[in-house]
Amino acid sequence: MPDTHFFASPRIGSLQSGPHDRLSDVPGITVGHATLAKEALQTGVTVIFPHEGDLFLEKTPAAATVINGFGKSLGLIQLQELGVIETPIALTNTFSVGQVATAQLRQSISRHVEIGREWPTVNPLVLECHDGYLNDIQAFAIQETHYTQACERASADFAQGSVGAGRGMSSFHLKGGIGSASRIAQCAAGHYTVGAFVLSNFGRLPNLIVAGQPLGRELAKHPAAGAPETLLEQDKGSIIIVLATNAPLDTRQLGRLSRRAAAGLARTGSVYGHGSGDIAIALSTAYRIPALAHAPMPSLRFLHETSLDPLFEAAAEATEQAIVNALWAATTIKGRDGHTRTAIHELLPQWRERLTLGSSQ
Amino acid sequence: MPDTHFFASPRIGSLQSGPHDRLSDVPGITVGHATLAKEALQTGVTVIFPHEGDLFLEKTPAAATVINGFGKSLGLIQLQELGVIETPIALTNTFSVGQVATAQLRQSISRHVEIGREWPTVNPLVLECHDGYLNDIQAFAIQETHYTQACERASADFAQGSVGAGRGMSSFHLKGGIGSASRIAQCAAGHYTVGAFVLSNFGRLPNLIVAGQPLGRELAKHPAAGAPETLLEQDKGSIIIVLATNAPLDTRQLGRLSRRAAAGLARTGSVYGHGSGDIAIALSTAYRIPALAHAPMPSLRFLHETSLDPLFEAAAEATEQAIVNALWAATTIKGRDGHTRTAIHELLPQWRERLTLGSSQ
Amino acid sequence: MPDTHFFASPRIGSLQSGPHDRLSDVPGITVGHATLAKEALQTGVTVIFPHEGDLFLEKTPAAATVINGFGKSLGLIQLQELGVIETPIALTNTFSVGQVATAQLRQSISRHVEIGREWPTVNPLVLECHDGYLNDIQAFAIQETHYTQACERASADFAQGSVGAGRGMSSFHLKGGIGSASRIAQCAAGHYTVGAFVLSNFGRLPNLIVAGQPLGRELAKHPAAGAPETLLEQDKGSIIIVLATNAPLDTRQLGRLSRRAAAGLARTGSVYGHGSGDIAIALSTAYRIPALAHAPMPSLRFLHETSLDPLFEAAAEATEQAIVNALWAATTIKGRDGHTRTAIHELLPQWRERLTLGSSQ
Amino acid sequence: MPDTHFFASPRIGSLQSGPHDRLSDVPGITVGHATLAKEALQTGVTVIFPHEGDLFLEKTPAAATVINGFGKSLGLIQLQELGVIETPIALTNTFSVGQVATAQLRQSISRHVEIGREWPTVNPLVLECHDGYLNDIQAFAIQETHYTQACERASADFAQGSVGAGRGMSSFHLKGGIGSASRIAQCAAGHYTVGAFVLSNFGRLPNLIVAGQPLGRELAKHPAAGAPETLLEQDKGSIIIVLATNAPLDTRQLGRLSRRAAAGLARTGSVYGHGSGDIAIALSTAYRIPALAHAPMPSLRFLHETSLDPLFEAAAEATEQAIVNALWAATTIKGRDGHTRTAIHELLPQWRERLTLGSSQ
Repeated sequence: MPDTHFFASPRIGSLQSGPHDRLSDVPGITVGHATLAKEALQTGVTVIFPHEGDLFLEKTPAAATVINGFGKSLGLIQLQELGVIETPIALTNTFSVGQVATAQLRQSISRHVEIGREWPTVNPLVLECHDGYLNDIQAFAIQETHYTQACERASADFAQGSVGAGRGMSSFHLKGGIGSASRIAQCAAGHYTVGAFVLSNFGRLPNLIVAGQPLGRELAKHPAAGAPETLLEQDKGSIIIVLATNAPLDTRQLGRLSRRAAAGLARTGSVYGHGSGDIAIALSTAYRIPALAHAPMPSLRFLHETSLDPLFEAAAEATEQAIVNALWAATTIKGRDGHTRTAIHELLPQWRERLTLGSSQ
Repeated sequence: MPDTHFFASPRIGSLQSGPHDRLSDVPGITVGHATLAKEALQTGVTVIFPHEGDLFLEKTPAAATVINGFGKSLGLIQLQELGVIETPIALTNTFSVGQVATAQLRQSISRHVEIGREWPTVNPLVLECHDGYLNDIQAFAIQETHYTQACERASADFAQGSVGAGRGMSSFHLKGGIGSASRIAQCAAGHYTVGAFVLSNFGRLPNLIVAGQPLGRELAKHPAAGAPETLLEQDKGSIIIVLATNAPLDTRQLGRLSRRAAAGLARTGSVYGHGSGDIAIALSTAYRIPALAHAPMPSLRFLHETSLDPLFEAAAEATEQAIVNALWAATTIKGRDGHTRTAIHELLPQWRERLTLGSSQ
Repeated sequence: MPDTHFFASPRIGSLQSGPHDRLSDVPGITVGHATLAKEALQTGVTVIFPHEGDLFLEKTPAAATVINGFGKSLGLIQLQELGVIETPIALTNTFSVGQVATAQLRQSISRHVEIGREWPTVNPLVLECHDGYLNDIQAFAIQETHYTQACERASADFAQGSVGAGRGMSSFHLKGGIGSASRIAQCAAGHYTVGAFVLSNFGRLPNLIVAGQPLGRELAKHPAAGAPETLLEQDKGSIIIVLATNAPLDTRQLGRLSRRAAAGLARTGSVYGHGSGDIAIALSTAYRIPALAHAPMPSLRFLHETSLDPLFEAAAEATEQAIVNALWAATTIKGRDGHTRTAIHELLPQWRERLTLGSSQ
Repeated sequence: MPDTHFFASPRIGSLQSGPHDRLSDVPGITVGHATLAKEALQTGVTVIFPHEGDLFLEKTPAAATVINGFGKSLGLIQLQELGVIETPIALTNTFSVGQVATAQLRQSISRHVEIGREWPTVNPLVLECHDGYLNDIQAFAIQETHYTQACERASADFAQGSVGAGRGMSSFHLKGGIGSASRIAQCAAGHYTVGAFVLSNFGRLPNLIVAGQPLGRELAKHPAAGAPETLLEQDKGSIIIVLATNAPLDTRQLGRLSRRAAAGLARTGSVYGHGSGDIAIALSTAYRIPALAHAPMPSLRFLHETSLDPLFEAAAEATEQAIVNALWAATTIKGRDGHTRTAIHELLPQWRERLTLGSSQ
């Protein structure tokens, strides 16, 4: 992906990455984007498929954590009660949750006309961040077709940066968006992959920490970083973090895993700002739960609780790396009313020699 | 309202009701309905206004409890984090959450163009039940205009029964829908009103308890109650409960109040069934929180914690009464595919002499 | 048990009971009591063993719900995080939690000297109610030996009423204490038992509901019920509810089960009063989790979520029955400062003909 | 305090500290220690007084967050329900929670004989970490007198390091214990102090991060750091974090504040390990809640929600600094079975020139 990663992002932590350092290193996971990029409309939809099968009939075990609840995501109540995902995970801008939820419903009933009739309804799962700095969010530009388009394009080989739901997102007063990473957890019971995926739209520049270094304080002095008073603005962003693993965890354990996203997030400079809707989901691809009562339940052998620490470390580190990767993959975007968010790599070259950041690749 | 209450519902409990035994006995609260009632389309939208002012600028303190999370409501994450409501509370069918959320967003930005630009975004609050037994929910019949229509019609004098969001709802295999009640809490610090409002769509007939009596077991023998095997069906319904009070409670105390809705619900025969999305919101009209940072915060004197018990009893009793009132206010509705839900009063006359239920009026 | 059940308690609900209508109808569960009954000291300790094996090495899956948190129980934080019980469940008075916790620690390390050294520490699980009306709680009369005594006496055939931790408890201004019941849940996957066990110490007499009937309002008129002004007192009690089942549920499902205790509790007249510490635990005996990392994890096949409703109904009904049984099993106790709590059966005879309560036996 | 701070700890973050960079920079707060240091007994009790008044009659508003629940602390259930602290906050070792709770009860009733009689009971608040590596925790050495001794010694000028409850604690395979720090939050509504206090007993050495630098990886190579295989051991520790502020926050806002402790914790290298009981409490000294129902409730004007971000940043930064200060204040301790934990300053000198850490003083 030379267009998104034209120079390597700093390497976070000490654990080994999966083969592509991204969510889809967890086998079976695919991601698709639909991007709107026309003048004041800089937004999109991104979908994550936990597996290639029928998501309603074969539900994915999952759990969620609300790190800070200034957010308008849909679908977490049922996810937390029942511990399953039954649609793709959709990400979009704050004002398009309704459109995308309706698209998910139509998609589900187009496949199973029994939904909402003989069968229960389906639980749309739509997560959001507010891209209104670059995007004219009041235009309600996202249509149901963008959702279906994103679904059709889903692939293990997906783009990062200013694409899909990440198109209009800002992070640390810089261009944010989509980022991903993965880490290998060496548990007593075997090696497992933990993938992280972020829609990154949070943070004030002076707070940015990269690989432990207070990079934001330096960058804030750069003329292209924006006026100093701008950088004092409150964090009105958000971040959505999706963790996936092929380790066999039950939903309580997945809840524990999801809470470790907060550790990775903190290390990039976040204190889970008041105005930031910070939400993490963790899912396992190791097994599926059948929808229909007469289908046999799987026989499961979960990881012993004492095996979780390597997964927790992998989750925190992959989250931190994914946030950094979102910054490094981003391209500068000019959106509504002349608003511009600069990609970090445009500010970095002249500062690079002052940094001792290792490279992730 | 002779059309909805053509005979009096049984009287629940021992506390005094407010003047009209409904949510709007809490001064300032209004309710509006938009109803679709055409062949297979039997659905609607209902809105509750906590006060007559600008809901975004003067936010209403509130809290929520998920009694059972098989539900797709939108807006609870932020409500629980920030403790405020900033739109009308909207109720509709499960598949129309998206449309109504979008309508709420458009309504908010039409009043404050700064929302999602200079100001943060607004948190839509849309609660739902699944009315697919009577309503062709797959038709996605609710439009944004239904939401605005419901808003325009809001009044302290509102209808109960098969109206608004309650049009297509079922409860205990009977016709459910909108119900409301109120109780006076005599606290040491003074008398306060607790109002309850339900969108009632839950329950199996054999489980129905009215004023402590196992009425459902009797009614289940009635030929019009439906085939016995039907009554074994799992509960796939839901109930939304909105409590309001003019008592000055902080959001932690409102959270405690909201949890008492579960007591009233249980007394009607619910065990919070697996498939039932049972959600309660509690709000206070005693004060408002300004949206803008430079507006002065109100000076508040909350109730002492030891004064809460009368409010808790009022909340439980008003909830139970509101659920009973929803049944008694309902009219028989025939909907999609010949499905019919019978109003309880059609089954009751011949059983009335066997009952010793008091009347609420 | 003629001493505790000298007349039969009213029958709650419609489900079938287990063979003895008590917690130990779930195979493997035993209960033991140590009772102090000497003048102003009217208190005790009760223990529940989930199974007969080594509780630390073979942990019991469990979950807990805080219905109302005015309580001082110990051990729930870790239970909720890890989903296991690793000691007997101990119940005692509020001021003796410390002594009993220390006793649990000593018992655990006496069996496994590695605890707190090579192995992690053990999580004491001590639940409490405030028996200070009858018992001189300031005497701190419970010693560690009472805990070990209760453990030694554990049996599937255990007493109810004014025994063990229930010795000094009050409920509805009457004598409360230990009660138990069980119900059979007929799930699609098979028949399972749900047992309930309560330490009942909550409620105001005018609120008492038995089998749907407002019995408390009648009893409150009885001269022996106490002075009317006394009956206006706030609820300063609590209830601990332990549910057990042999159904194979994971800890998320056990959490759902535990929340149904609140339904049964509400039907006896509780609104989860401000001053009442109402806590429910649910455990499964269907499998065990090994403590040691190298021990093989069990292979598990959980119930399909759609099979839970019969278990939920059984949990609510068994809880309600257990609370009623605690009242009916109680004997009148005179404690500190001449305080007396009268057993309900002393008030009932002259009221019995006015009641139409069925018998549970 | 030359004995505890004999060289300055690295300076964390960018915010201004209070005058003494410790919890008691929040006016009114005092801390007392009782320390056992005799051969295999290396443990103690620490108490924190939120104010100098009668803690039961004038309760302190507070909230708590369980970051990771592998812990045995007592008192959080009621704290979370009622939002108040009514005793000193006590800290001790895991096996002494019972003794200290009993001591708190005796202290409370010695002042108010009505507690547990005419008045409700009191809620002991005892937080713990497991000091069993250095301390012979199975000796149950803590007595009630240690609690009262710690109370008598409470002062705004308190020691940090290997004292009180921190005596036997380990952190990052080094000597941990008591640490404290403070930061000034510049809110629109004025300047407020946020103090942090930690009982630090968590972490694996290779994970230690100090001021963003992976110091632990370097120190792990030091011969005195212990055998490499030891450093692979699982984290079996814990951390208790107490935040205090003089800002007028309600209990929901204090809950939000307490959750920011997790950000500071993560920045020191924690991922909230499986075996670590990580708990944060936040309290406000800006007002008090009267115990007695007839006492007038205070008139309160809380901070606007948009003013919270500076407090959140202060909470995270003060927590991180307090953890670092605990390491730097520690002295090497030799305890049971020849186990030794080395103070970081003994390992640091030869590594100092390779570090570019600023000094906090």
